[in-house]
Amino acid sequence: MPSYTAPTKDMQFVLHDVLKVSASDIPGYADLDRDFTAAILEEAGKISSEVLHPLNTVGDVEGCRLENGVVYPPTGFKDAFEKMKEGGWPGLDMPEEFGGQALPYLISTAVGEMFSASNQAFTMYQGLTHGAASAILAHGSDAQKQTYLPKMVSCEWTGTMNLTEPHCGTDLGMMRTKAEPQADGSYKISGQKIFISAGDHNMADNIIHLVLAKIVGGPDGIKGVSLFIVPKVLVNEDGSLGERNAVSVGKLEEKMGIHGNATCVMNYDGATGYLLGEEHKGMRAMFTMMNEARLGVGMQGLAQAEAAYQNAVIYAKDRLQGRAVTGAENPEGPADPIIVHPDIRRSLMDQKSFTEGARAFAFWGATLIDQAHRSGDKEADGLISLLTPVLKGFLTDQGYDMTVQAQQVYGGHGYIEEWGMSQYTRDARIAMIYEGANGVQALDLVGRKLAQDGGKPVMAFFELVKTFCKENAGEDEAYVRDFIEPLKKASKDLQAAGMYFMQNGMKTPNNALAGSYDFMHMFGHVCLGLMWARMGKAALAALAEGTSDPDFYKAKLLTGRYYMARRLPATALHLSRIESGADTVMGLTADLF
Amino acid sequence: MPSYTAPTKDMQFVLHDVLKVSASDIPGYADLDRDFTAAILEEAGKISSEVLHPLNTVGDVEGCRLENGVVYPPTGFKDAFEKMKEGGWPGLDMPEEFGGQALPYLISTAVGEMFSASNQAFTMYQGLTHGAASAILAHGSDAQKQTYLPKMVSCEWTGTMNLTEPHCGTDLGMMRTKAEPQADGSYKISGQKIFISAGDHNMADNIIHLVLAKIVGGPDGIKGVSLFIVPKVLVNEDGSLGERNAVSVGKLEEKMGIHGNATCVMNYDGATGYLLGEEHKGMRAMFTMMNEARLGVGMQGLAQAEAAYQNAVIYAKDRLQGRAVTGAENPEGPADPIIVHPDIRRSLMDQKSFTEGARAFAFWGATLIDQAHRSGDKEADGLISLLTPVLKGFLTDQGYDMTVQAQQVYGGHGYIEEWGMSQYTRDARIAMIYEGANGVQALDLVGRKLAQDGGKPVMAFFELVKTFCKENAGEDEAYVRDFIEPLKKASKDLQAAGMYFMQNGMKTPNNALAGSYDFMHMFGHVCLGLMWARMGKAALAALAEGTSDPDFYKAKLLTGRYYMARRLPATALHLSRIESGADTVMGLTADLF
Repeated sequence: MPSYTAPTKDMQFVLHDVLKVSASDIPGYADLDRDFTAAILEEAGKISSEVLHPLNTVGDVEGCRLENGVVYPPTGFKDAFEKMKEGGWPGLDMPEEFGGQALPYLISTAVGEMFSASNQAFTMYQGLTHGAASAILAHGSDAQKQTYLPKMVSCEWTGTMNLTEPHCGTDLGMMRTKAEPQADGSYKISGQKIFISAGDHNMADNIIHLVLAKIVGGPDGIKGVSLFIVPKVLVNEDGSLGERNAVSVGKLEEKMGIHGNATCVMNYDGATGYLLGEEHKGMRAMFTMMNEARLGVGMQGLAQAEAAYQNAVIYAKDRLQGRAVTGAENPEGPADPIIVHPDIRRSLMDQKSFTEGARAFAFWGATLIDQAHRSGDKEADGLISLLTPVLKGFLTDQGYDMTVQAQQVYGGHGYIEEWGMSQYTRDARIAMIYEGANGVQALDLVGRKLAQDGGKPVMAFFELVKTFCKENAGEDEAYVRDFIEPLKKASKDLQAAGMYFMQNGMKTPNNALAGSYDFMHMFGHVCLGLMWARMGKAALAALAEGTSDPDFYKAKLLTGRYYMARRLPATALHLSRIESGADTVMGLTADLF
Repeated sequence: MPSYTAPTKDMQFVLHDVLKVSASDIPGYADLDRDFTAAILEEAGKISSEVLHPLNTVGDVEGCRLENGVVYPPTGFKDAFEKMKEGGWPGLDMPEEFGGQALPYLISTAVGEMFSASNQAFTMYQGLTHGAASAILAHGSDAQKQTYLPKMVSCEWTGTMNLTEPHCGTDLGMMRTKAEPQADGSYKISGQKIFISAGDHNMADNIIHLVLAKIVGGPDGIKGVSLFIVPKVLVNEDGSLGERNAVSVGKLEEKMGIHGNATCVMNYDGATGYLLGEEHKGMRAMFTMMNEARLGVGMQGLAQAEAAYQNAVIYAKDRLQGRAVTGAENPEGPADPIIVHPDIRRSLMDQKSFTEGARAFAFWGATLIDQAHRSGDKEADGLISLLTPVLKGFLTDQGYDMTVQAQQVYGGHGYIEEWGMSQYTRDARIAMIYEGANGVQALDLVGRKLAQDGGKPVMAFFELVKTFCKENAGEDEAYVRDFIEPLKKASKDLQAAGMYFMQNGMKTPNNALAGSYDFMHMFGHVCLGLMWARMGKAALAALAEGTSDPDFYKAKLLTGRYYMARRLPATALHLSRIESGADTVMGLTADLF
């Protein structure tokens, strides 16, 4: 059985040594001093390790059951859900007026990493609810907010997002679900939606489905899509629960992983729905929450990697096999622990340097979201829009690869379900797909975000890296050599790729799009390079100031040097792939595949 | 449900246009003309598509059952196994005197790709039998050969390999299973073995377990390990079946994939065993078959990638979503097939250029094995020893990555078991682990094979690449630019890495071992680069000679150019990682992870 320990120390380092959150002028950040965040993180870590994690394997093995139209989640989920509600965790960053605690999104991001790492399938029930509540918060009428938000913020009612249909996922303009206006202002919703996470269960009194549908007679394609609130149980004027709505679960999907989450085919048979936001502006309403939702999914990639890494370390210290090439390190024992072997180290360092870098990147992203929302900062908003596909695509791709590496450390035991390492890879796999498959993230990045606002956000990003490098050019020589120089080089590669797109992608868009995936990954590497440069600087500062824990900061420096030397140079490969253009990518006619 | 079509056309291209097998002087190759190999491949393709493939999902869903000590494979496996026996497939490359067809290993490799691609879990039952039979063929007494081989070559009896124990896998010197000599020359075998593929089932009258164990009183460690034949049912003097031996199945493992194969915990409770080969030379006996066994596993990586790729192509042509950025290509339809999108293309080209390159590499490896065995060619033997860890490690790592890419093409459907793409990744995952985890392959390559025989094999490899480049320097200009130049550059990177190991690894072995995994991958890329250069040349020749199928050869050239431009440049990244040395890899003390 795997174990999970919340990485609170590392989170504190990122929050305070690196991001220096309590010194920030973002509204609400001044309260986030070390003691305050420590208290929250410890508490969240405790519930993660003690309540959620023990149910992770249970959820995987049991899965959900559909019986007589009711979905039953795995044993123990209902009790754990009650505990989450009691602790007020679902409403951490929700407005106080609806029962939330109004903490920054940054804090719910940190807490969310722990919840996802300890039990992704479980955490999705409240994650989806959070997403649906955010949509109502952003686009709902006052009456809608009053009706739904207090219950959803507390997770007495949960929520879902209904986008995909059997024949359309990415291309939602082809959607067939229709909404017929009724005399009372409501709509009758009819159609089938698939892949609905947390689509049904018995852990809440009601489930508020947000459903994309086309109002009959509206414009064709994506411009005719509207968003509707479709409660599982209709809500009476006085807020009490009324009749069952005409929505039902058609089927539970058998999936590769996240078995503990009910992925449902949902059938809407003239179900009563209420327009959320404006007619035909459904996609816009969805997009409002996209940055947060996608950062959240990126975080799942990191979270699974972190959990898998922790267990790989435990196994590598415990499993005795062979001797260190430099001489026995456990001469009393029958063999040395496998952590002495360089290739096991290489794998653990890949994982460690990724998870710590990714955590800093995700937390930084969360501060940008807070800055955009709480300070109304347009530049932060532009920057996080640019970085969102990178956070989602890069962190989930790399996070998945790291779970595969962690599994590999276990040798044959990694393939046996009993040891739990397979689940990390199987659960992590979905994050590369949902909330926009990673190829779509790459397309969003190159096809839309680069040129957004005349390219201002991407220029701001480069400026930020350049300024950081310039400001730290006079630092300690080894730091400049090991951190600043590699970052400069990687950033130059990224700029060269951007330049290639400008010069070759305007006339021939395929030249840009054929390199989009590589660009997303090289962008991710530069972001992690920047984070490592910042973390290295923070570690140096802590060591210079004198610290009671020098080993922690020395390990940071070493791990950063590893990333800079061994991971970041991938940018050159991505650049060379991009610069080879679209000819070999697009050259074959379809019948020659 | 996925489908599978044997890639006979591509196999014929590799066998005849590239390897020109019937012109080879390897004994038995003269018979391998186009018609002969076409007939075998067509027949094997038919049984793969019609018999094995339809059982692939069945095996995954049902798995095996252990009831009252008997293992039952999935529905349909027993009938299919009968058909395989009737067709004589298990004995394809076995000697005629034991009922085989004495065909080259090359042919069983090609056929093996099809069998693995259509049903890996099923094919392992005969694959393990083949391995065990090969060991008896190489090391058995005449009496042992007469007793076991005719039955094993026909698969009336199957075989297994028992190496791993709960506390030791890679480090077999720690083995505890013991063998007590008996007065009649036999041994009593006692101990527990785990991860025994095809360990038990009801598809054969007997199962011949080959078991590594330590003879009581023998040397400590790996030098005291011997190999034993331990039949499930003892065989009487006259060849008839006698008493049940004291061997039993303790448990069936629940695995991530290959559910159709029974992975058993085997308990030996004083079971009767017979020494195979010499006392205390058990590891040597195992190593004899290692090149073949590891090439076979490398082939599984390719096979799963090929099967997954075929289905990704079908889906990409069928699924309508979005429009080509260059203008609608399916204007009559509601959207274009996703194969028009550059990033889907990029993924399909990654897969196609890998599987075709890997097939050529594996087939070439098989010819080296034939050359070593049939012609007694020492140089070929040295070369295939060197290339074996590359074939195993690179093809299974990359093969797995390609199944993940193929799954990604399906978007959300890729995560749903019903669509079958998850199974390809789950089944492919094991090949990176068994038959020596890939980290161990890398260690074998850098720690042992590079220096083998004074470095002659690796020099021979470089010479071979150099000669090819020199001989083709005067070819068509585009060919030299797109194929020869990139190959030269990649080979230079590989040599530079070897040089780094020589200069830095002698004194500080960690400097070499910390780069071993990268070296294995860069070696693999150079091998595929060489194969693509050879295939490109063969395609040019076919086009120059005039062919009825120019599109096939043009596609080859384009796919090769893709590999050269987009995949091969990875060597530079691997080199830079290697040249960063061991400092950042080994710098942390274990407690800082």
